[in-house]
Amino acid sequence: MKHFLSLADLPDFDATVQLAKKLKESPFAFEDQGKRKTIGLLFFNPSLRTRLSTQKAAQNLGLNTLVMNFSNEAWALEFEDGTEMRGIRSEHVREAAAVVSQYCDIVAIRAFASLTDKENDEAEIVLKSFQKYASIPVINMESATNHPLQALADALTLEENKTIHRPKVVLTWAPHPKALPHAVGNSFVNMMHYQDADFVIANPEGYDLDPRITKQITVLNNQEEALKNADFVYAKNWCSYTQYGHILRTDDEWMLSPEKMKLTNNAKFMHCLPIRRNIVVSDGVLDNPNSLVIEQANNRTYAAQAVLKTLLDNG
Amino acid sequence: MKHFLSLADLPDFDATVQLAKKLKESPFAFEDQGKRKTIGLLFFNPSLRTRLSTQKAAQNLGLNTLVMNFSNEAWALEFEDGTEMRGIRSEHVREAAAVVSQYCDIVAIRAFASLTDKENDEAEIVLKSFQKYASIPVINMESATNHPLQALADALTLEENKTIHRPKVVLTWAPHPKALPHAVGNSFVNMMHYQDADFVIANPEGYDLDPRITKQITVLNNQEEALKNADFVYAKNWCSYTQYGHILRTDDEWMLSPEKMKLTNNAKFMHCLPIRRNIVVSDGVLDNPNSLVIEQANNRTYAAQAVLKTLLDNG
Amino acid sequence: MKHFLSLADLPDFDATVQLAKKLKESPFAFEDQGKRKTIGLLFFNPSLRTRLSTQKAAQNLGLNTLVMNFSNEAWALEFEDGTEMRGIRSEHVREAAAVVSQYCDIVAIRAFASLTDKENDEAEIVLKSFQKYASIPVINMESATNHPLQALADALTLEENKTIHRPKVVLTWAPHPKALPHAVGNSFVNMMHYQDADFVIANPEGYDLDPRITKQITVLNNQEEALKNADFVYAKNWCSYTQYGHILRTDDEWMLSPEKMKLTNNAKFMHCLPIRRNIVVSDGVLDNPNSLVIEQANNRTYAAQAVLKTLLDNG
Repeated sequence: MKHFLSLADLPDFDATVQLAKKLKESPFAFEDQGKRKTIGLLFFNPSLRTRLSTQKAAQNLGLNTLVMNFSNEAWALEFEDGTEMRGIRSEHVREAAAVVSQYCDIVAIRAFASLTDKENDEAEIVLKSFQKYASIPVINMESATNHPLQALADALTLEENKTIHRPKVVLTWAPHPKALPHAVGNSFVNMMHYQDADFVIANPEGYDLDPRITKQITVLNNQEEALKNADFVYAKNWCSYTQYGHILRTDDEWMLSPEKMKLTNNAKFMHCLPIRRNIVVSDGVLDNPNSLVIEQANNRTYAAQAVLKTLLDNG
Repeated sequence: MKHFLSLADLPDFDATVQLAKKLKESPFAFEDQGKRKTIGLLFFNPSLRTRLSTQKAAQNLGLNTLVMNFSNEAWALEFEDGTEMRGIRSEHVREAAAVVSQYCDIVAIRAFASLTDKENDEAEIVLKSFQKYASIPVINMESATNHPLQALADALTLEENKTIHRPKVVLTWAPHPKALPHAVGNSFVNMMHYQDADFVIANPEGYDLDPRITKQITVLNNQEEALKNADFVYAKNWCSYTQYGHILRTDDEWMLSPEKMKLTNNAKFMHCLPIRRNIVVSDGVLDNPNSLVIEQANNRTYAAQAVLKTLLDNG
Repeated sequence: MKHFLSLADLPDFDATVQLAKKLKESPFAFEDQGKRKTIGLLFFNPSLRTRLSTQKAAQNLGLNTLVMNFSNEAWALEFEDGTEMRGIRSEHVREAAAVVSQYCDIVAIRAFASLTDKENDEAEIVLKSFQKYASIPVINMESATNHPLQALADALTLEENKTIHRPKVVLTWAPHPKALPHAVGNSFVNMMHYQDADFVIANPEGYDLDPRITKQITVLNNQEEALKNADFVYAKNWCSYTQYGHILRTDDEWMLSPEKMKLTNNAKFMHCLPIRRNIVVSDGVLDNPNSLVIEQANNRTYAAQAVLKTLLDNG
């Protein structure tokens, strides 16, 4: 594995989940592997779980960490080639990526979707530019269209909590007052391609995810039908993909409630967090023992640690 | 000790001061005790001394540190229960506190008073919410009504500098152009309840601290009378407690000057910093060899280290 | 060496360059020398290279690092003496510097020129105040008039890349849309005083650097004439020194291009970064194998490490 930009970069998905599981049991088993090496964490957007869990994972492996809030601590970056840099962007990513590569052995980057320019978002300008101009491995800490560290943590959470061989897993859209990216939804779907599961996506009309990602997966526009007999329910909002960046409805019909959860097979509840209570789901779902959201957050550390260890094994 | 929210949480105040004193002599005596453990420092407000001294204390004990400026690096937090999270607050403290507990072994929090909502400030919403929803020890790095790490450092400073068994200690209000919280004043008063001292508070009319904290302590409205024969003078501004959050006077009558210090028994001068020169006190007081303010700041490290060590001893 | 505010503070310039070279070969040769010691990095301005390379250098020597963005994480500082601190500046540098000295063994500071007040900038208020009131060594991470860590990295870069005993080195002014400080230009000139080289400065009329720094060095107003037979070309913008802080021309006549580089003796190209492409230089110069800009950035680590090691050797 040269970079970790998406789950597809993993040499062996199942082995990585097992590695994450092993690292959760023995977080310090390889605490000298990263010694004398440095990871740079570059944030273009806010972060709580990713910031803390990736640092924690790095420390568990003995890596030095350098954290930067790129937007306000460094220089505004230019990503376009051939442009006359006359505006507010005072450094080109060609230099920034090459320079960071002098000080770090691995660089991890968070850069959200704009949700205003679909083509640009799908081109993953920030992440791909760093990949192109950095001479070190690049890790995706949530990009415009992908959040593979979250999906890997979710896979570990499914692995730990499934009680039957082929569970029914439902990814359901849920309401939100702001237009949110598709990254988590996309990566969860990508991850489910590796699972032996009865997987269904539920979303209102107009909210279908990119069909190149969902492929043959069943998409229902009826949430209650989808929830029937589910073993796992993953709730997540995203804005419209076809009417890119738009919010098409503001009602609470799709909010997940304890009543709706009764349709399931006593399903475990999942969400990547942060979550808006009583908008995305009602309190009763989150505060129920069946909620796995905190364990998902915990598993972020071991997902990141598995990715870091795999990259260190290569180097 | 499960948490350190106020001095009352210490199992033994005097023993903690002695521990801080011992750690100041041998800061690295326990440099492996925190190995493989992590402290998260969450700042909702600016900080110089607290930020640096708490990190230093943690490093002296071998702890990993994760520092976050919560307000601009993470998500705006909701603290109210049962609310529909439709506004700018995108994460509830229930999740945030539980999540931080996955990555850290101890969490320290700074969250100042609003000074606009007395009831809310006194409820210590931020600190108490973290205490309630975190599964790890919580340390107060200055909350709405308390600054116990400062008070513990002040106790060490008194201990190091007192030359008689029962010194006279004066806490005097001083002017300030901004409305400041009562946290430092409150914690200093709380700390003095453990001291064998002749303790007097001096403040103008309308500036009495919360009587539930000052209890039987003598409060004088005459600064000069209070200063007479003092061995230690601690200056500090706070806004009105009864007319909560208000500044009642803007004159400089209560500014501490070398002339006023002549009324004392060659008193040592104390202040928690930051301090506005020639507003709170005149240069002559701060630049006098009797000023202990820098040593107080130094002692912050060992106060924090004593608290951290006590929490690590438990765990 | 007590402080490192400028190259003149180095006890032996050549020995320091050789030390940097040695540390580049064996970065971890002294990885325990900084153990139990702490460096504070205080930023009053943005930073990418300096931030990361100085942290990296410190980590290579085993130092703990405490990083602070002073402007937004701490209190606004007052630098003037005797003033009544009634405004937004709530802490005086006298206290701040003394306090930081309690927690750190070395402090490094970045504080750019205002470019509005020449006298103030030349007085180096921030850096000199810290020097005056700190009780620990102070390192200049770019001040109003100097950037000696950059110049030391440049010296290492020259040393590594020169193929003849006495190369021709040209420092050429280049265009920029914003008014930039003279710090890098000044320090490069200071550094060249230690070099056996044919050194020429090229800049348009009105853009002469401080003559107390350039001294007897040839200054040409004709860029093409200066570039002839150059072995190294260092491009850098600065605003007018005589008409302090002003931009006197906005044309692109002085932009460095591959055509102009043909006048040279196949010169190596240098710049401190960040650089605005197709404004300061055209893409063709930066993307040419003769460009040393990334190696200069890499050498920042070893320049900083040599300075830190020299300070640690003293202590």
